[in-house]
Amino acid sequence: MIIVGELINASRKAIKEAIQNRDVEAVQSVARQEHEAGAHYIDVNAGIFLGEEEDYMRWLVQTVQAAVDGPCSIDTPNPKAIEAGLSVHRGTPMINSISLESDRYDRMMPLLAGTDCRIVALCMSDEGVPKTAEDRLRIADRLINGLVQNRIPLENIYVDPLVQPISVDGAFGIEFLKAIALIREKFVGVHTMCGLSNVSYGLPGRSFVNQTFMPMAIALGLDGAIVNPLDKRMMAIIIAAEALAGRDNFCMNFIKAHRAKKFEL
Amino acid sequence: MIIVGELINASRKAIKEAIQNRDVEAVQSVARQEHEAGAHYIDVNAGIFLGEEEDYMRWLVQTVQAAVDGPCSIDTPNPKAIEAGLSVHRGTPMINSISLESDRYDRMMPLLAGTDCRIVALCMSDEGVPKTAEDRLRIADRLINGLVQNRIPLENIYVDPLVQPISVDGAFGIEFLKAIALIREKFVGVHTMCGLSNVSYGLPGRSFVNQTFMPMAIALGLDGAIVNPLDKRMMAIIIAAEALAGRDNFCMNFIKAHRAKKFEL
Repeated sequence: MIIVGELINASRKAIKEAIQNRDVEAVQSVARQEHEAGAHYIDVNAGIFLGEEEDYMRWLVQTVQAAVDGPCSIDTPNPKAIEAGLSVHRGTPMINSISLESDRYDRMMPLLAGTDCRIVALCMSDEGVPKTAEDRLRIADRLINGLVQNRIPLENIYVDPLVQPISVDGAFGIEFLKAIALIREKFVGVHTMCGLSNVSYGLPGRSFVNQTFMPMAIALGLDGAIVNPLDKRMMAIIIAAEALAGRDNFCMNFIKAHRAKKFEL
Repeated sequence: MIIVGELINASRKAIKEAIQNRDVEAVQSVARQEHEAGAHYIDVNAGIFLGEEEDYMRWLVQTVQAAVDGPCSIDTPNPKAIEAGLSVHRGTPMINSISLESDRYDRMMPLLAGTDCRIVALCMSDEGVPKTAEDRLRIADRLINGLVQNRIPLENIYVDPLVQPISVDGAFGIEFLKAIALIREKFVGVHTMCGLSNVSYGLPGRSFVNQTFMPMAIALGLDGAIVNPLDKRMMAIIIAAEALAGRDNFCMNFIKAHRAKKFEL
């Protein structure tokens, strides 16, 4: 399971302030905690700073990578901010994200073509977020074809089917789960990925709902997630669910995590 | 989700003693707690008492139903104990269980034919417990056909694909999950059911593993479970998972449970 740590996002007040103050230690401390908790990529998002996003993105990537020996997930729909992040990034980043929205697609694809970046492909088009699993599959199909034609290998593509709140429509959870299964069945080698907290929007007890949804998505084949890696219960659930889904040889990772007391919650 | 409360089982020491002492209050107290916690059926099992099982089964059914306004799950492979339980049961019980083991099948089917009992059908044959999802489907196919030919409606059949420990073979969890999906796809109207705790046999932190497996099984379509209904976290997970699986109109059951503080764990 690929874990993308979601905490360095300027929509969070503490991070917004840290970025504005160019507070290296504050940003690096979060990055280190995420990395140590098991994040494979540290997401960096400065999207709220219109006009300054490129500068801030460059600074975030450099600041994070000075503290953590690992890649970033460059999180923005803004091609200029992606270029800025890429210009200083060491190693292979994740790009979060391209979509089928025509403006975003047309401006983003030339930046990505032929690179070895890991690319999050959002199932969203000019018509918005699809409702059914089949609609998601159609959008994924076009995105994957476009990326492959631009020399992105299948295994570098992470399709995010985009989950919507079950408080809005009770079928939204299951349509998302079906989409995961369909995408994995049709495009062998492609990964799936999501930030699943949207599923619980409008409900009480959101973190419990999110923690329950994670193993459901893993059961259908989800193999990447944008989460708070400091949520110990969520991380323990992911480890257990992976063993249950047959993705942990001899349950070694589970047993190691248990010995490391990761299940003492 | 059909919940079968598993606690009144003579393999548990306190229940064994309560049965031997004909301790009405002890048995009824557990039955009441299970019922109040949401069990739709109260499982009764006196299987350890060879030679006395019939008497004890009769007593257990009467004792439980004197305390609880609901049906029992008569849990035994012994046809005589089933007859004894049925002779005193009010309403429509669950019978747990028939299997494709030839001796059990041949002696059990005449008792069940033409009744409106809910019937748990274990995916087990004379060759033992199957390993793959497809093997489970083949056994389910023969069991369901046999039951339908004996005038059991599809919707009264609860197929238990039988989960085996992931500590023995890492694929056992996912093969079970696939079996649930295959059975539901092929036999529309048939229910699936399981006691899933076997999945974690041989691992540390078993209840955490079981709690993680439940939403995975629900995601694939499991709609019945033999569980400890006094496990508050497990019951809360089931309620959340059902809402996430689109089986809770307007999330009303989830919201009601939240108001009743069932998510304060």
